[in-house]
Amino acid sequence: MLEDLKRDVWEANLTLHRSGLVILTWGNVSGRDADSGLVAIKPSGLTYDEMQPEHIVIVDLEGNIVEGGLRPSSDTPTHLLLYREFEGIGGVAHTHSTYATAWAQARRPVPCYGTTHADHFRGVVPVTEELTEEALAGDYELATGRAIIDAFADIDPTEVPAVLVASHGPFTWGTSTAEAVRNSIVLEQVAQTAALTEMLSPEVSGISPQLRDKHFLRKHGKDAYYGQPAR
Amino acid sequence: MLEDLKRDVWEANLTLHRSGLVILTWGNVSGRDADSGLVAIKPSGLTYDEMQPEHIVIVDLEGNIVEGGLRPSSDTPTHLLLYREFEGIGGVAHTHSTYATAWAQARRPVPCYGTTHADHFRGVVPVTEELTEEALAGDYELATGRAIIDAFADIDPTEVPAVLVASHGPFTWGTSTAEAVRNSIVLEQVAQTAALTEMLSPEVSGISPQLRDKHFLRKHGKDAYYGQPAR
Amino acid sequence: MLEDLKRDVWEANLTLHRSGLVILTWGNVSGRDADSGLVAIKPSGLTYDEMQPEHIVIVDLEGNIVEGGLRPSSDTPTHLLLYREFEGIGGVAHTHSTYATAWAQARRPVPCYGTTHADHFRGVVPVTEELTEEALAGDYELATGRAIIDAFADIDPTEVPAVLVASHGPFTWGTSTAEAVRNSIVLEQVAQTAALTEMLSPEVSGISPQLRDKHFLRKHGKDAYYGQPAR
Amino acid sequence: MLEDLKRDVWEANLTLHRSGLVILTWGNVSGRDADSGLVAIKPSGLTYDEMQPEHIVIVDLEGNIVEGGLRPSSDTPTHLLLYREFEGIGGVAHTHSTYATAWAQARRPVPCYGTTHADHFRGVVPVTEELTEEALAGDYELATGRAIIDAFADIDPTEVPAVLVASHGPFTWGTSTAEAVRNSIVLEQVAQTAALTEMLSPEVSGISPQLRDKHFLRKHGKDAYYGQPAR
Repeated sequence: MLEDLKRDVWEANLTLHRSGLVILTWGNVSGRDADSGLVAIKPSGLTYDEMQPEHIVIVDLEGNIVEGGLRPSSDTPTHLLLYREFEGIGGVAHTHSTYATAWAQARRPVPCYGTTHADHFRGVVPVTEELTEEALAGDYELATGRAIIDAFADIDPTEVPAVLVASHGPFTWGTSTAEAVRNSIVLEQVAQTAALTEMLSPEVSGISPQLRDKHFLRKHGKDAYYGQPAR
Repeated sequence: MLEDLKRDVWEANLTLHRSGLVILTWGNVSGRDADSGLVAIKPSGLTYDEMQPEHIVIVDLEGNIVEGGLRPSSDTPTHLLLYREFEGIGGVAHTHSTYATAWAQARRPVPCYGTTHADHFRGVVPVTEELTEEALAGDYELATGRAIIDAFADIDPTEVPAVLVASHGPFTWGTSTAEAVRNSIVLEQVAQTAALTEMLSPEVSGISPQLRDKHFLRKHGKDAYYGQPAR
Repeated sequence: MLEDLKRDVWEANLTLHRSGLVILTWGNVSGRDADSGLVAIKPSGLTYDEMQPEHIVIVDLEGNIVEGGLRPSSDTPTHLLLYREFEGIGGVAHTHSTYATAWAQARRPVPCYGTTHADHFRGVVPVTEELTEEALAGDYELATGRAIIDAFADIDPTEVPAVLVASHGPFTWGTSTAEAVRNSIVLEQVAQTAALTEMLSPEVSGISPQLRDKHFLRKHGKDAYYGQPAR
Repeated sequence: MLEDLKRDVWEANLTLHRSGLVILTWGNVSGRDADSGLVAIKPSGLTYDEMQPEHIVIVDLEGNIVEGGLRPSSDTPTHLLLYREFEGIGGVAHTHSTYATAWAQARRPVPCYGTTHADHFRGVVPVTEELTEEALAGDYELATGRAIIDAFADIDPTEVPAVLVASHGPFTWGTSTAEAVRNSIVLEQVAQTAALTEMLSPEVSGISPQLRDKHFLRKHGKDAYYGQPAR
């Protein structure tokens, strides 16, 4: 079932690996079928070399396995909460990419220091609160998702489709698995450039809301003029 | 029309991508036909994999599309102003390369710390002033070009064929598209080495005008002795 | 003899090289045969291109050559001491990988700043004491091994399968050669991210023991739920 | 004439390029024929793609072209002085590799912070004095060579086969072109690791003379035991 989605999720996982954002068995991408609401996700612990489309696991939004002979990613409950809470997203990606993870470990949001950032994220990429001991001892991956949702209380997740989980690493999302993966690639680039910007100018401040919105809205929304008109 | 120029611009864009200076759909290269004054430029938002020579758009110096079924790069007005104002340039390149962008986001010119820099740029690579809110609200890409021209009030753009647009990223140029792309490659290398130089010696000063000119003039101008005599 | 082990050790050495952790003739991997207790190790000073499975040297745990026409790695006495002292390990790897070596040269243990670290190492990766002049003048490679053992007086080497030899570089181990190499790859990634974390937040502290153990035990031990059940 | 040497020098230049130490037309390698004393060197300004063995230029030790239709590297007088002054060297390499150049631009010698450094260089890699205005205005490339010789007044160039030319970049040498190139590769690795070591521990000191000599002499000289006995 959902052969196209499984192939799509498989390819998105491979793109993540080829882009250099994940090594070994790290990272995972999922995708949601718009019609059924079912989610396809990478199996846990497989290497990118051995993984095939038929290994992709189908789960419902409560995490019940609908199809597949392997365990889904241990991060599945985090993915599912994002699908339940963030309307309209069709793909979620999680990496341990070097610079985004460094910001997450520093427990700092990525400031918006330039137009490359603003082209993709309309403001800082937030970092979650640290989990309590109770949350760690309970349903940990669900609590991770809950911390992400809390970080977006005042941020529109379609305008900033990325987050840093404190002491852990980034999650990104998008309308499709491809867009979720692209946002992981952009976040890593933006996180590296922001770190270097601070190295060159420790007192640097973020760009103005006007420049930020000029760039974000040139690429997104009804008045966008970047790219080609939809055909 | 201008099939050779379109292929040349297509190849220059691919070289930019292969060199690692741009990812996804970022960056763009244009070239100017010396006879007609027309400019060929990358279409907006296409990936480097899908772009073909026939996708390259031909515009006149005022930005009117002369040939091509796709929208030209959203940065086209910036390119065109450089062609109108900087005499003798035949190619312009724009990237979001990591280190050059970090200097741009730090709003600092790249100091001339060594002979690698001086071999290619006769002095600091300047950074533009930030745009006013009025400029942001108006013809933004033209205003970006205007800020570049202003930064060269006291600098010869044929001696320093590169600039950092504040909070944005680098533009470079040259007598050809290939030279414009080469200058983007050199700028990224020089920007990285300068950042590391400051890390190793925060109080370092730029090289002397004598050493700078020795290297620049060994490669450029009538007494150059680097490379092979023109055949 | 031990043709499978020799091929296994040969392949593990090539993986180390392909992963970018070692250049030229640097680095070495060994593997131990569980039945005979014999150890197969890379010959000294060969390039990764020229090395073939038949070049792998077989030694006993006291370092006597049992098979092979070439000198074993000069680091062989260090490897052998680890096999004698750390129960149950089947592979040892040594690299001069960039970031792990920088921490070793800084004579600092790698702090546990995030879950990527905790997924693989249950606490800081320790650094050895510096060798005395007497140790340097005597059996140097054995003394290096002794310093490693001393660093694990209060650490379980199966929970932290990695060490930094002060002013030298990392050694890692595992139940197999493949696991030893994987731990070298993880250590380099973790060492890089930790360095960047400190750059972004000089006062950052390590993660809580609760978060560290949650991640380590999700992957290791009897209640692990990462990956697929053993078949 | 000297076809083997020309091919050897050609291949050494390509290895330099493939190793990532040089881009575009930067860098150059030369080799000396032990019998005739003649030197083969890269032509000036050719790309590594277009250069063929027959383009390699043969010069005598005074710089007279003995064979070849192209101009030799503009750095030829520097190479030749090293051959005249440093006994027994058979190859010289020059790069603008990132980290070695950063140390050169910071006008700091590379400290010996670890055994990787000591395996190859028996002490700090020195940096030259800056050239006077008179030297810059005269025979610049010869003066560069003279500054290198001066930096080795108290250092044996066979024990430290590398130097940083202030504000410029590294030169390395060896008994062969292959060894000269290997020393450029090692220097870049050592320069990067040293920079990171200082980032992690700003007050770090160099390793002890005992540890330094232990490693250098384990690889070099009559009591060396690294590698295989000469056949």
